[in-house]
Amino acid sequence: MTSLETALPLTRDSIVSAHELIKPHIHLTPVHTSTTLSTIASTPQSPDALKGTPWEGQEPAKPKIKLFFKCENFQRIGAFKVRGAFHAVKRLIAEQGEGEVRRRGVVTHSSGNHAQALALAAKTFSIPAHIVMPSISTPSKIAGTRAQGATIHFSGSTSQEREAVVAEVIKKTGATLVPPYDHPDIIIGQGTMALEFERQVEDLIANTEGLNVRKGKKGLDAVITPCGGGGMLSGNAIALRGTGIRAFGAEPSFQGADDAKRGLEAGERITSVKTLTIADGLRTPLGEWTWKVISDQEYVSGVFSVTEKNIRDAMKLVLERMKCVVEPSAVVGLSVVLYNEDFRRLVEREAGDDGWNIGTVFSGGNTTVEAISKIFADAGDEQGERAEGVLGLDGQRVAENVAG
Amino acid sequence: MTSLETALPLTRDSIVSAHELIKPHIHLTPVHTSTTLSTIASTPQSPDALKGTPWEGQEPAKPKIKLFFKCENFQRIGAFKVRGAFHAVKRLIAEQGEGEVRRRGVVTHSSGNHAQALALAAKTFSIPAHIVMPSISTPSKIAGTRAQGATIHFSGSTSQEREAVVAEVIKKTGATLVPPYDHPDIIIGQGTMALEFERQVEDLIANTEGLNVRKGKKGLDAVITPCGGGGMLSGNAIALRGTGIRAFGAEPSFQGADDAKRGLEAGERITSVKTLTIADGLRTPLGEWTWKVISDQEYVSGVFSVTEKNIRDAMKLVLERMKCVVEPSAVVGLSVVLYNEDFRRLVEREAGDDGWNIGTVFSGGNTTVEAISKIFADAGDEQGERAEGVLGLDGQRVAENVAG
Repeated sequence: MTSLETALPLTRDSIVSAHELIKPHIHLTPVHTSTTLSTIASTPQSPDALKGTPWEGQEPAKPKIKLFFKCENFQRIGAFKVRGAFHAVKRLIAEQGEGEVRRRGVVTHSSGNHAQALALAAKTFSIPAHIVMPSISTPSKIAGTRAQGATIHFSGSTSQEREAVVAEVIKKTGATLVPPYDHPDIIIGQGTMALEFERQVEDLIANTEGLNVRKGKKGLDAVITPCGGGGMLSGNAIALRGTGIRAFGAEPSFQGADDAKRGLEAGERITSVKTLTIADGLRTPLGEWTWKVISDQEYVSGVFSVTEKNIRDAMKLVLERMKCVVEPSAVVGLSVVLYNEDFRRLVEREAGDDGWNIGTVFSGGNTTVEAISKIFADAGDEQGERAEGVLGLDGQRVAENVAG
Repeated sequence: MTSLETALPLTRDSIVSAHELIKPHIHLTPVHTSTTLSTIASTPQSPDALKGTPWEGQEPAKPKIKLFFKCENFQRIGAFKVRGAFHAVKRLIAEQGEGEVRRRGVVTHSSGNHAQALALAAKTFSIPAHIVMPSISTPSKIAGTRAQGATIHFSGSTSQEREAVVAEVIKKTGATLVPPYDHPDIIIGQGTMALEFERQVEDLIANTEGLNVRKGKKGLDAVITPCGGGGMLSGNAIALRGTGIRAFGAEPSFQGADDAKRGLEAGERITSVKTLTIADGLRTPLGEWTWKVISDQEYVSGVFSVTEKNIRDAMKLVLERMKCVVEPSAVVGLSVVLYNEDFRRLVEREAGDDGWNIGTVFSGGNTTVEAISKIFADAGDEQGERAEGVLGLDGQRVAENVAG
């Protein structure tokens, strides 16, 4: 990682420069729309759907919403993480020189998308990559990372055990640590998606007939992204500051995974989270850098959370209606828009009859047929409710079964 | 349906005119590429993979292939069928006048994508749509078609029973029959996708760095589409005739679903098929019109078939690597490219070192999480092979796990 003394300032300008650096190495992922999902979002939830929620018995909100989806599930390695990884590696090269980085290598601890992203970025510049993974990681993740040419180092599962192995690798090789989210280079790299998103939606509105956008609307009013470690949310918030487009975050509530929201309420960062939410990319707490951005209302207008059932319901809609394969973490923003009444009331209140154009990011699509089957089979088992019932419910909010 | 006396000639010009007519009502669906799948296609199958196939013990072909995917799974109602349906309805209006069509309505028998497509096209012009469906159709299909505002008429499951109900509806209402594939207006409508595909691939090659297309290649060399009733294949073949781009068809082999291939071998159309292939959109035999086109080598260069396992394997790759939700019928073209050694040898022989740019159509994405789970659970049960094994096998043919 570039040292913090020379780290880029957390500004939109830094993100514009980062975008130039990484553009040749990433996909310009498409922005999809969905008449069906915008219709569901603009239809009040039924009183039945609110039973057992904090909003039981209250009048459902009536927001008007047009949805736009930034499909980072179609990104290289299947997730947005390549943005931060390529940026960090290119900045390292600029600072240390290519020869030196090749000699020393890079290292990170992750069993998820960041591991594959860093491995790909390193491979692109013939830099050795060391990935520290818990030895209990699933074989497909180990194989996927190894396929990118990285050296895998196994560790125990606790953060202490992982960090010990990282320290050992650094001692042996001189490799530079590239953390998964809590560093300016990573945050700035992830923010590049917001620049694309902003322009793509403006182009879509300008060039597409029949998009049903309210007269006079030329672009996005808000962007809501999933929030785990907070790299994507803080990057987007920095990119959008001063544009008039608000940034919101979305978290799972299961077993305290909503650490950002709880931290904001308490006025203090929550530093440890232990949750098994199905949104497995969002099991981490905010870092120091990301907390600084996310806890500043000049940057982030609010963080909202949703239940496991809300996440499953949103995931089913995206799979079946939008025909996009997404991992559970990827739909948490959409899930807030569809099911969180606090957020929906805010939109109704602030946007009024004009409605809002809301962008949400499908952060990744790295899942398997087996994992998808299990998520919905478990839902049926645990809750005594058939997964079809979920769709049936939303069916009442749908006027037309269209894919786009 | 417009009467056959006034039907359009089966030419590319007719398809260009059809495209102008339907363009405002359909999505310009995107064309995706996949480094991973092109790499798999360009890697010889292992001798193990050929065990138990007609090619066991033979040298695996070594074709060089760059794949392009026309994503009609992102089309309105989730399938290409809206192209033919909108074209048929607009032609009807041109011939009979809008008032007359509105008075009489349209009718078809289908429990699949054509039913929803016709219902949507009719609704768009305030025309009553009557859909005859077997009473055993799945509730979600009935609900989906009803949501488009169509009137559902239930019938028995045999074609005689269905046709009796259709005749009754026509007698009562004067509705015009819009068949699912065997009519020039439908064939010409489906062919419009080829015009888009051809141009989109040329644009992609011209504008995308790093697409790894061989020097001098400017567009597609071949298009392979799934073939059931043959509307899409014959439409594409007509559109592509004279362009230098060859048209191929792909069928399931299960329980004789490969009626086009068998008919070509016998020199005579096979008029009845009874199969329960998982590619349920391809369970129908060719019609008279589509047979005329498909059996003419000036139009279609060949039809190839694949096993149920080949279809499942291709579907898993598309879901997990390309992050696209597709129905089994949609991947039969890709499946031929990956697994049919006759086709792969043809490409090796004809294309040589230059390789071919092959386009294939993801014809639809109308499936459910439950159906996907069942397809892969059944695969494990029936064959005593874990679905993961399938991916593991292909993993050996993959260099990089990228989504795009």
